[in-house]
Amino acid sequence: MYKVAVVMGSKSDFEAVKPALKALKKFGVPFFVRVLSAHRTPDEVHELVNNAEKDNVGVFIAAAGKAAHLAGVIAGLSTLPVIGIPMKSSTMDGLDSLLSVVQMPSGVPVATVAIGGSENAGILAAQILALGDKELAQKLKDYKKEMQAKVLKDDASIQDEIDNI
Amino acid sequence: MYKVAVVMGSKSDFEAVKPALKALKKFGVPFFVRVLSAHRTPDEVHELVNNAEKDNVGVFIAAAGKAAHLAGVIAGLSTLPVIGIPMKSSTMDGLDSLLSVVQMPSGVPVATVAIGGSENAGILAAQILALGDKELAQKLKDYKKEMQAKVLKDDASIQDEIDNI
Amino acid sequence: MYKVAVVMGSKSDFEAVKPALKALKKFGVPFFVRVLSAHRTPDEVHELVNNAEKDNVGVFIAAAGKAAHLAGVIAGLSTLPVIGIPMKSSTMDGLDSLLSVVQMPSGVPVATVAIGGSENAGILAAQILALGDKELAQKLKDYKKEMQAKVLKDDASIQDEIDNI
Amino acid sequence: MYKVAVVMGSKSDFEAVKPALKALKKFGVPFFVRVLSAHRTPDEVHELVNNAEKDNVGVFIAAAGKAAHLAGVIAGLSTLPVIGIPMKSSTMDGLDSLLSVVQMPSGVPVATVAIGGSENAGILAAQILALGDKELAQKLKDYKKEMQAKVLKDDASIQDEIDNI
Amino acid sequence: MYKVAVVMGSKSDFEAVKPALKALKKFGVPFFVRVLSAHRTPDEVHELVNNAEKDNVGVFIAAAGKAAHLAGVIAGLSTLPVIGIPMKSSTMDGLDSLLSVVQMPSGVPVATVAIGGSENAGILAAQILALGDKELAQKLKDYKKEMQAKVLKDDASIQDEIDNI
Amino acid sequence: MYKVAVVMGSKSDFEAVKPALKALKKFGVPFFVRVLSAHRTPDEVHELVNNAEKDNVGVFIAAAGKAAHLAGVIAGLSTLPVIGIPMKSSTMDGLDSLLSVVQMPSGVPVATVAIGGSENAGILAAQILALGDKELAQKLKDYKKEMQAKVLKDDASIQDEIDNI
Amino acid sequence: MYKVAVVMGSKSDFEAVKPALKALKKFGVPFFVRVLSAHRTPDEVHELVNNAEKDNVGVFIAAAGKAAHLAGVIAGLSTLPVIGIPMKSSTMDGLDSLLSVVQMPSGVPVATVAIGGSENAGILAAQILALGDKELAQKLKDYKKEMQAKVLKDDASIQDEIDNI
Amino acid sequence: MYKVAVVMGSKSDFEAVKPALKALKKFGVPFFVRVLSAHRTPDEVHELVNNAEKDNVGVFIAAAGKAAHLAGVIAGLSTLPVIGIPMKSSTMDGLDSLLSVVQMPSGVPVATVAIGGSENAGILAAQILALGDKELAQKLKDYKKEMQAKVLKDDASIQDEIDNI
Repeated sequence: MYKVAVVMGSKSDFEAVKPALKALKKFGVPFFVRVLSAHRTPDEVHELVNNAEKDNVGVFIAAAGKAAHLAGVIAGLSTLPVIGIPMKSSTMDGLDSLLSVVQMPSGVPVATVAIGGSENAGILAAQILALGDKELAQKLKDYKKEMQAKVLKDDASIQDEIDNI
Repeated sequence: MYKVAVVMGSKSDFEAVKPALKALKKFGVPFFVRVLSAHRTPDEVHELVNNAEKDNVGVFIAAAGKAAHLAGVIAGLSTLPVIGIPMKSSTMDGLDSLLSVVQMPSGVPVATVAIGGSENAGILAAQILALGDKELAQKLKDYKKEMQAKVLKDDASIQDEIDNI
Repeated sequence: MYKVAVVMGSKSDFEAVKPALKALKKFGVPFFVRVLSAHRTPDEVHELVNNAEKDNVGVFIAAAGKAAHLAGVIAGLSTLPVIGIPMKSSTMDGLDSLLSVVQMPSGVPVATVAIGGSENAGILAAQILALGDKELAQKLKDYKKEMQAKVLKDDASIQDEIDNI
Repeated sequence: MYKVAVVMGSKSDFEAVKPALKALKKFGVPFFVRVLSAHRTPDEVHELVNNAEKDNVGVFIAAAGKAAHLAGVIAGLSTLPVIGIPMKSSTMDGLDSLLSVVQMPSGVPVATVAIGGSENAGILAAQILALGDKELAQKLKDYKKEMQAKVLKDDASIQDEIDNI
Repeated sequence: MYKVAVVMGSKSDFEAVKPALKALKKFGVPFFVRVLSAHRTPDEVHELVNNAEKDNVGVFIAAAGKAAHLAGVIAGLSTLPVIGIPMKSSTMDGLDSLLSVVQMPSGVPVATVAIGGSENAGILAAQILALGDKELAQKLKDYKKEMQAKVLKDDASIQDEIDNI
Repeated sequence: MYKVAVVMGSKSDFEAVKPALKALKKFGVPFFVRVLSAHRTPDEVHELVNNAEKDNVGVFIAAAGKAAHLAGVIAGLSTLPVIGIPMKSSTMDGLDSLLSVVQMPSGVPVATVAIGGSENAGILAAQILALGDKELAQKLKDYKKEMQAKVLKDDASIQDEIDNI
Repeated sequence: MYKVAVVMGSKSDFEAVKPALKALKKFGVPFFVRVLSAHRTPDEVHELVNNAEKDNVGVFIAAAGKAAHLAGVIAGLSTLPVIGIPMKSSTMDGLDSLLSVVQMPSGVPVATVAIGGSENAGILAAQILALGDKELAQKLKDYKKEMQAKVLKDDASIQDEIDNI
Repeated sequence: MYKVAVVMGSKSDFEAVKPALKALKKFGVPFFVRVLSAHRTPDEVHELVNNAEKDNVGVFIAAAGKAAHLAGVIAGLSTLPVIGIPMKSSTMDGLDSLLSVVQMPSGVPVATVAIGGSENAGILAAQILALGDKELAQKLKDYKKEMQAKVLKDDASIQDEIDNI
């Protein structure tokens, strides 16, 4: 089975990236994690992509903030699907990263999720790999039902609280 | 082989969506096209998603403008990868569609491309399907070389024009 | 008398939605509350709207954040007035929800109030229902006078504080 | 039956407001039109609202651009539902009007539609009045079916054009 | 001498408006303060403006947040200079108020200061009135020198701190 | 009587600044015009301000685009009221100029009008000077009535056009 | 003397980049031009930077649009000063490129000029190189005087046009 | 060797400017620091620039917030490279300063770094001066390797933490 290569631009993004890793773990998708910066370790990013076939990588997830070039740089080097997570930093509320990640030129797509949308990045990677893995596809369907059940449970429980308004 | 279901919210989006179809055609990815609105034909959107397995759909591409809910609605109904194209309309320069498409809540990802980024939506769909299709994967690598060659040709040709500045 | 169906996309929105419920209670407008997500429980949202006539619903209030599709999805299914409350989430200061709620395509209006404007959603629902209920109309007029009186009381009380500046 | 009072801040808004009038006409909702500015004719705006009951007004529609105060000023004077249309002007792509119309303080709601969303303003007014008028409610349901049929017709017709891509 | 009428839309704006009052006090400009809302007490706002001549008002300062109509409404009623202070509220970081205050239509200017720029509103009012009051004009020149002196003192004092960097 | 010094950052702004000059002419306010750039002719800007008293300047109007520093630079040098007109340029739709003009630091106000709001700059200057000139004050009142009459004429004339909708 | 390496992401940017080249030519700064894309020709970009010392490059100018990574990628590879020109594309009015270029993480600066600010990029490169070249420094001072003279000529010529307003 | 003149608009910016000073210190670049405001001490800013040659200044770094004119004013007076740091203030998340600093008119460039990007301002100044100083150039190359090493160390250390997710 393909692995997901999860790359973050800085170790300080680790907490915010964890939901992606948890989602991959939950669905039993193999993955590995790298801290590599498009700007500070460009050679290592190239090396990662060059080794992707050998390392059996199927999907990249790249998380970075501000002028977030990491996902775009990987997408420039690879023909695998690249998922970009725009990280919120101390200014501009994540709009800078969102635009830096999503507004890619023709020919070099990055599959962008919401600002800070790490969990969705993990799920999207699983959805992509599930096209070749029926068991994984079933797990995603089960998860959809879990989400539905959780909402319906919340819906039921809220009825008791209405009287106290 | 999986098909790509390309859905646009309005027939007026057809010209802007064509680059996605051309990309799919270029890479030999089978696809079909629907004009279906999340708000005007919700039942038909449901039906489309319900029939996806039977119709052998592997990836959705959904294009819509303004409060662009189409991709999100499909993602709410399906566990297949959904690619969203935010379309620019007459106001807000596409920012409204971008945020409506990309800012999805946890559990329901939409793989968002640039505002009006139809060609990239087609390429991304091909990249996803290429994980299970070596021939397609090779075509994507060839395309990357084509793009590179085109830039280098431009680079060569521009040298003649510098003297006239 | 018609009821107001208040729907929120997540139970975590409950505190922020309460002012809508308090306003409805204050004006004696009957209402019920549901936690239903456009993306996680699409079928239950359809069911809610399908039962609206039977349940004597006159107005919907829908609150959601980020790519806030809930109000739009309900408006796509119903011909009743739908009031949308764009909820502020952790990024983009509510601009994403505002645009996702208000920028609806022709034919499918959502009556949008301010970001986090739950109290106004409740008042607007009451204003709509008051067209068929003279007593309710009078309560709204009384409330306008209350608001005026409160401002004038503040105006009077502030005069004492000016000297200490 | 109640009338809809359609007010625009400047006669230059007339073309952009017409879709609201056409929608009202289509649904057989009685209406009248005024050109009145919150800033240039404040007294006449007050007079309009003061006469609303006498004139059998049920809903206001107010269209204005830039620092668009018209809808808010009417909402400050009336307890009837006020629908605001933010008009796009020569700068800021309508964002200024949108925020000036929608971000109303607690107690004074304006039911805001999309930037330039005149048709939806007319439909929303009809939806509000349809709560007291079964025939009108039926017309709105019929219109929803018409819209659906139009999309499905577009969906059918687009299939022929796919081959030529 | 003319008075400055300082109006705020809500008593909760008082703390944020104080720097305007302090500036007026510092320059010896007579002023009075009102809490009056364009939307909740429209009649009292009209009355305030109607009495302006009698009350010897020379300049209005109006502070409000969100869809901030107060300055514009006063400017619609008066031919005196109206200074608008856009107040920051809990969403949109003050951009909504700024655009609601500054983007006035032709014929009805509002002299807008920075978001939360109360002190500058007071100084601007003093600058306007100083055209007819040489003593006040001198005070403003003295204040400019004070500001300059304060910066130069900071400039001197910072030199000691450089070594510890 | 005081003069208004109208300064524009570039001769290319002349057409857009004309409505300010027309307004001043209409009200009989004496003015002179300068093309002076804060960045290209800083010394001449200083000289203009230094001569202001001698030249009997009462109010400055400064129009500039992009990073529009002209009004702020004048305000830093003078204690007279400075009116800033943010000019729209080829990018950012005037938002850059608006923020560069209006967001002045404490102590140095600029009375900002709307993006491209030249007419209002002229009227605001007249309003300021009218505090010391009863005849001018009357002209401003007459102008307000003219504007009102124009709107009411438009209101009357539009009634004929409604039938053709 | 050092050369300036001017790189543009696409040949379609050539017209918009020309003012940078003209400025360099005007000041006699040697330069060469490349069309190289960070995403489509990453290896050639690396090669360009690796050869910079050998090619006697002193400053890079990089122009790109949308998710404009070119300047940042070069800055990640080089310790020479990198000037970034954010190019306006068909959506977002250049805000996406501006944020993608300017919001660089700590350690990897890009000297960003205005959206489409090619002429300033050329001048800035000349200013940087003039630190080691007195003749060039004098040319820059002369240019400043030229600009001043041009404004003063405009200032003189506009006086004739005032009477016709 | 040239000195870097670091100017901040207010002493309250000192903490945020420190990383620039630390970077200069780290690289052994001589610098001095001034607190000078474009608006409050315009004459002292002129004097600073006039003395630049005498004081052996090679590069200016100017930090200011809101309508941040400091860098632009210096760039208007000098032909030396001017680096602008847009400072975040209490509103608008730094967007106002960014646009006020970066959107300079043709002929007067400001080399703008990220919002609050003080460290990069210091590094950029060092990069500029390193063109004439081989030792400094080597320090910058060493620093690039340090950054790379730090990322690779983080990359190594994160592997241990993956198991605990």
